Amino acid sequence: MQEKLTLMIPGPTPVPEKVLMAMGKHPIGHRSAEFQHVVQRTSELLKWLHQTNNDVLSITGSGTAAMEAGIINTLSKGDRVVCGDNGKFGERWVKVAKSYGLDVEVVKADWGQPLDPETFKELLDADFEKKIRAVILTHSETSTGVINDLETISKYVHNHGKALTISDCVTSLGACNVPMDDWGIDVIASGSQKGYMMPPGLSFVAMSKRAWDANKDSDLPKFYLDLKQYQKTVVKNSNPFTPAVNLFFALQASLEMMQQEGLESIFNRHGRHRDAAQAGMKAMDLPIFSATGYGSPSITAVAPKNIDAEILRKAVKDKYDILLAGGQDHLKGKVFRIGHLGFVSDRDVLTAIAAIESTLVSLGINNSNLGAGVAAASKFLN
Amino acid sequence: MQEKLTLMIPGPTPVPEKVLMAMGKHPIGHRSAEFQHVVQRTSELLKWLHQTNNDVLSITGSGTAAMEAGIINTLSKGDRVVCGDNGKFGERWVKVAKSYGLDVEVVKADWGQPLDPETFKELLDADFEKKIRAVILTHSETSTGVINDLETISKYVHNHGKALTISDCVTSLGACNVPMDDWGIDVIASGSQKGYMMPPGLSFVAMSKRAWDANKDSDLPKFYLDLKQYQKTVVKNSNPFTPAVNLFFALQASLEMMQQEGLESIFNRHGRHRDAAQAGMKAMDLPIFSATGYGSPSITAVAPKNIDAEILRKAVKDKYDILLAGGQDHLKGKVFRIGHLGFVSDRDVLTAIAAIESTLVSLGINNSNLGAGVAAASKFLN
Repeated sequence: MQEKLTLMIPGPTPVPEKVLMAMGKHPIGHRSAEFQHVVQRTSELLKWLHQTNNDVLSITGSGTAAMEAGIINTLSKGDRVVCGDNGKFGERWVKVAKSYGLDVEVVKADWGQPLDPETFKELLDADFEKKIRAVILTHSETSTGVINDLETISKYVHNHGKALTISDCVTSLGACNVPMDDWGIDVIASGSQKGYMMPPGLSFVAMSKRAWDANKDSDLPKFYLDLKQYQKTVVKNSNPFTPAVNLFFALQASLEMMQQEGLESIFNRHGRHRDAAQAGMKAMDLPIFSATGYGSPSITAVAPKNIDAEILRKAVKDKYDILLAGGQDHLKGKVFRIGHLGFVSDRDVLTAIAAIESTLVSLGINNSNLGAGVAAASKFLN
Repeated sequence: MQEKLTLMIPGPTPVPEKVLMAMGKHPIGHRSAEFQHVVQRTSELLKWLHQTNNDVLSITGSGTAAMEAGIINTLSKGDRVVCGDNGKFGERWVKVAKSYGLDVEVVKADWGQPLDPETFKELLDADFEKKIRAVILTHSETSTGVINDLETISKYVHNHGKALTISDCVTSLGACNVPMDDWGIDVIASGSQKGYMMPPGLSFVAMSKRAWDANKDSDLPKFYLDLKQYQKTVVKNSNPFTPAVNLFFALQASLEMMQQEGLESIFNRHGRHRDAAQAGMKAMDLPIFSATGYGSPSITAVAPKNIDAEILRKAVKDKYDILLAGGQDHLKGKVFRIGHLGFVSDRDVLTAIAAIESTLVSLGINNSNLGAGVAAASKFLN
């Protein structure tokens, strides 16, 4: 049977019919009053989602563009930064920072382990000359399904007094609590194809007052990603360059749906899905890849022992048309990842577990306790 | 009456139903075999549209992002470039070039006038030391409705031997002949919401072999707009960052429609619409803003004498729900612009002229010869 795909990857995530319909409308002029209303409304809702009074700027581009914008709009060539790296996206920010000639100190943790906040604290405490300009890290590491302790690290950065916290919240925003102002995060980058329940194509950068202060001294060259141009126009409910008008229609529709559900309810749903997915996998004797207590609310990475993860993943796709994500880089074949991010219901999670369970049997993998995965997950869904 | 808007601005342009429907589908995984087919097919069609054997790279972003990518991937800090400036977009490329510390010599023409190819020739001929690394210009200047003589200028650049031709073809590609390989253009930037008949959100950069050679020495910092990353992945029918998947669906649908119409037919249609629009305006005693013989095939800028252009433009919008473009910067109120770019039929052009004619009468502007505009335009449409 064709055309009945279910996405359970960490992006693109499933998109509600209402959002697709909004996106499929005829475009309108991006300098029209009608479009200004869309920008005004989405700007308000973006502040709500980020739990902030800061402006949240929308860029036509991927999450990487937003993250790069956060870095190049606050820092200067040669600036010392500390970069957390415990997965593919942590690695990416190290690359971005080095591309722009920053002086990067990398704090590593093994893939599957969280970053240790105390290592950041030690580096920050030892920086008497206040040379560290930013701590750059990924909140939810999509490649490993690990959530880092952004709250604690951000607190340590504040105690330092000079450095900024620049965070990739691409798969945490809209999935768990990321209160920008309360936690004092200076830059938050996110992307539309994640918790936003939208197709890819828009990304978002929120900048604190401290980040804008740092912007004044930033000397890295930029044009399309020059956030000052976005700041100047957003107050007029406009954009510096032609934005992806139809994606803005989708953004308004999806943010309104999110507001209707409520932040608390969204966060609970994602937490429940993580717990259900983890319990289901463990009951099937499939080990969770992320360290205990550090499972991301949006991705569960699983490291099966008796079967190549790619074989299992492909079999689930072929038989049940559920697309799971594979392992990246050295984790290819070792790990598969269940995306439970965005427009994902309890039914979807239960279905994915049932499909994995059924597929394991069809692949002849020993599973003496058939039904155990669904039973274990159900407990968290009821 | 609501919801019956007709766009006649130079972008966003009208989008065919088939393209909207393609875009409104549920997204699929951007690393899936299904999506690789989309990338493969659109890559082939993009080469066809550019009349080139070079790879054409797709970026999620606006035309400015594509143009910036063309500049920062071929040049280095301090490089001497000659930049054509005869309108708002020419001005923009000067700003981009200066943002990256290039040594910019500006060749100006008044707004409404074309760039003089001989000025470029003189500068290039006098450059015995071969210091000029690029000539940067806009082919169709959207702000003034002027088409520059890219073919001749590109020929002069080739005679120089060292410099590259970097051209903004945002409102010329898919509207008139831009044979990349035949004319020896090194970089072509374009955007989806123009001749492509798509909503905004994707942009495209084509790079010649000479441009890739120059890329090896380019030292300007970049990451999201690093075209090498796009080149590496496009050969695998993939993308370096999560692309706007749904816009790729739309791209495939629109390029297939364009190929069905055929390049010759598309170019003839745009030429016919320019001629009809110009004839219609002149018959109504509304002067064409662009110099005679240099009217863009995609935009006709009109400078009415007896009425504020904004008043006329707004009246046409209010009464007939046709959105014309206003004048930009110092041309605001002095000029309005008819976009006849992309998915625009003979009927649309005739309708716009009839609506302008009718509105002039309702505004009490002397028009002794009512019907003259439609009559004059009709001659070019039959």
